[in-house]
Amino acid sequence: MIQQLNVVPFVSVDHMMKLVHAIGIERMLSDIAAYIEQDFRRWEIFDKTPRIASHSLEGVIELMPTSDGKLYGFKYVNGHPKNMKAGLQTVTAFGLLSDVATGYPVLLSEMTILTALRTAAMSAVAARHLAPKNAATMAIIGNGAQSEFQAFAFRALLGIENLRLYDVDPAATEKCARNLARHGFRITRCTTAMEAVEGAQIVTTVTADKQYATILTDNMVGAGIHINAVGGDCPGKTEIHRDVLLRSSIFVEYPPQTRIEGDIQQLDPDHPVEELWKVIAGAAQGRTDSSQITLFDSVGFAIEDFSALRYVHERIREAGTYVDLDLIADPDDPRDLFGMLMRAAPSSAAAA
Amino acid sequence: MIQQLNVVPFVSVDHMMKLVHAIGIERMLSDIAAYIEQDFRRWEIFDKTPRIASHSLEGVIELMPTSDGKLYGFKYVNGHPKNMKAGLQTVTAFGLLSDVATGYPVLLSEMTILTALRTAAMSAVAARHLAPKNAATMAIIGNGAQSEFQAFAFRALLGIENLRLYDVDPAATEKCARNLARHGFRITRCTTAMEAVEGAQIVTTVTADKQYATILTDNMVGAGIHINAVGGDCPGKTEIHRDVLLRSSIFVEYPPQTRIEGDIQQLDPDHPVEELWKVIAGAAQGRTDSSQITLFDSVGFAIEDFSALRYVHERIREAGTYVDLDLIADPDDPRDLFGMLMRAAPSSAAAA
Repeated sequence: MIQQLNVVPFVSVDHMMKLVHAIGIERMLSDIAAYIEQDFRRWEIFDKTPRIASHSLEGVIELMPTSDGKLYGFKYVNGHPKNMKAGLQTVTAFGLLSDVATGYPVLLSEMTILTALRTAAMSAVAARHLAPKNAATMAIIGNGAQSEFQAFAFRALLGIENLRLYDVDPAATEKCARNLARHGFRITRCTTAMEAVEGAQIVTTVTADKQYATILTDNMVGAGIHINAVGGDCPGKTEIHRDVLLRSSIFVEYPPQTRIEGDIQQLDPDHPVEELWKVIAGAAQGRTDSSQITLFDSVGFAIEDFSALRYVHERIREAGTYVDLDLIADPDDPRDLFGMLMRAAPSSAAAA
Repeated sequence: MIQQLNVVPFVSVDHMMKLVHAIGIERMLSDIAAYIEQDFRRWEIFDKTPRIASHSLEGVIELMPTSDGKLYGFKYVNGHPKNMKAGLQTVTAFGLLSDVATGYPVLLSEMTILTALRTAAMSAVAARHLAPKNAATMAIIGNGAQSEFQAFAFRALLGIENLRLYDVDPAATEKCARNLARHGFRITRCTTAMEAVEGAQIVTTVTADKQYATILTDNMVGAGIHINAVGGDCPGKTEIHRDVLLRSSIFVEYPPQTRIEGDIQQLDPDHPVEELWKVIAGAAQGRTDSSQITLFDSVGFAIEDFSALRYVHERIREAGTYVDLDLIADPDDPRDLFGMLMRAAPSSAAAA
């Protein structure tokens, strides 16, 4: 009685981990980066809306939909900074792709791991267009769940091998350093943010506090560096001092969303920013001189999740990293949903 | 290595059918109706937004989120009228409940069947407040996938046993009549909509064409009847002639959404309508006299899905109708998502 139409391929957390290992993490980050660049080049054809957020005292739950007219995708994602103390993830996520022509889902996937991968891939894509050419050292301020993914993406896409790590919690730095040293990175553990930025051409800020924080102050930011500002990503949560923003050339994903959620929420609503997709598509310039401070005010946009889901969708069959989920009721006669239900009765002779 | 925190109870289509049979369809419709009434009475505490729709030539894909501050819920639902001809469901859906305090999902469920149940329960709740007291006969115009559920809900909540069925496709009427006759309803098959409404105190319209249609014209609607208008539920899709609307007392779920999607999209944006939650909460009157024409312009609102998911969430454990889904990455150390991923490597001795 159950037909193939009713099933949706499901990628569990375990499947996603197997997929990462089957492909290799740096290869997968490079591939996702390529899919993001592909989709950013056709930015104008996408349905774009700021994410739909439900805020509470403890955090936020968001839905991030988009569509290219052929596929529709959305991500469910939460952000609960206090979760960590309770032994939970700050950010968890899952996502879905479906066929616009029928509305039927074609993929359901965990996205906690996939979001970490796509966020890191997006950061590295931006840096490829914005970081100084000679970049060899990156500071990572905030050494939580996202930090190692950022490191791998910057090595995969820009060849960065020298990392200067700092976190308010030394245990987080130790965890990050241990994870990365094992994979050939050259690590410097730092005891202040100021120490971390010394000699770094790229500064990644990826902290998790849901508050106005000032991770980078004006005196810490020298000429010519690229700032990858990942952690300032919802209203009331910022990382970069306003004075740093005022000295920087700022690049964003989707201005209507970033002005609400990004570090630029501290600036006037008409402060000039450049859309990253235009840089990727060759319609705007990235870094134009070596003394310029560039800043990618990353908040995460639905199209990046779409790119990542599209990539996973195309790779799971060969890797076999999914199961079929009985998610869609699909009676033989589409008008006979009730008949299908009745035939499933335990006492029914017609039950399959 | 996998902890219990990572799993989310998943109710498949098969589980949902088993749950309906374990509880009994009329009992389940009455229960869901009670949950809807409970939530409508506390309407004001809910986060309310019109659904987020992505329209295409073929149909629409929608996300419908809401929250009562403790639980957050959303539904994914499509509407593709042409699907039926391709052997697919016009409407398929699934939904999720999560814990507002942590953002962690607590239930993922099929909602194709559940939406049919909650839509029917909602219709019957409205009719209990709006239909004439003596109602014994209902016309059902549109005999597709939703029709039998409507019949069962009206019997469960209002005791309606006499049904007059009509569909433009006689095969749909035959299917619906066959399904219902088996369960003790007294069925009259009709060959026109005009014939179907004869002697009916309640008229349910539940057709699926994505276009402006006129299922009920002015001459078909006598004094004192209640119209349960279910099928006019998205922009450009209506069922009821404007003149009928102008003679009716109109009740709606959430005016900002119904004015865009309901039959009242044909009326001035300030045409008076009553919010159904106020009637249920005793803050407004339903039917006030026997010659009044009442009309429930049903489009389906997120709170109804929330009520239905809340009910399913509370019932699946005793019924055992779910499986645990490995949806949430949950490393032992929440900051060590990367470490969890690396320990899952096939070659790693630490892999579980």
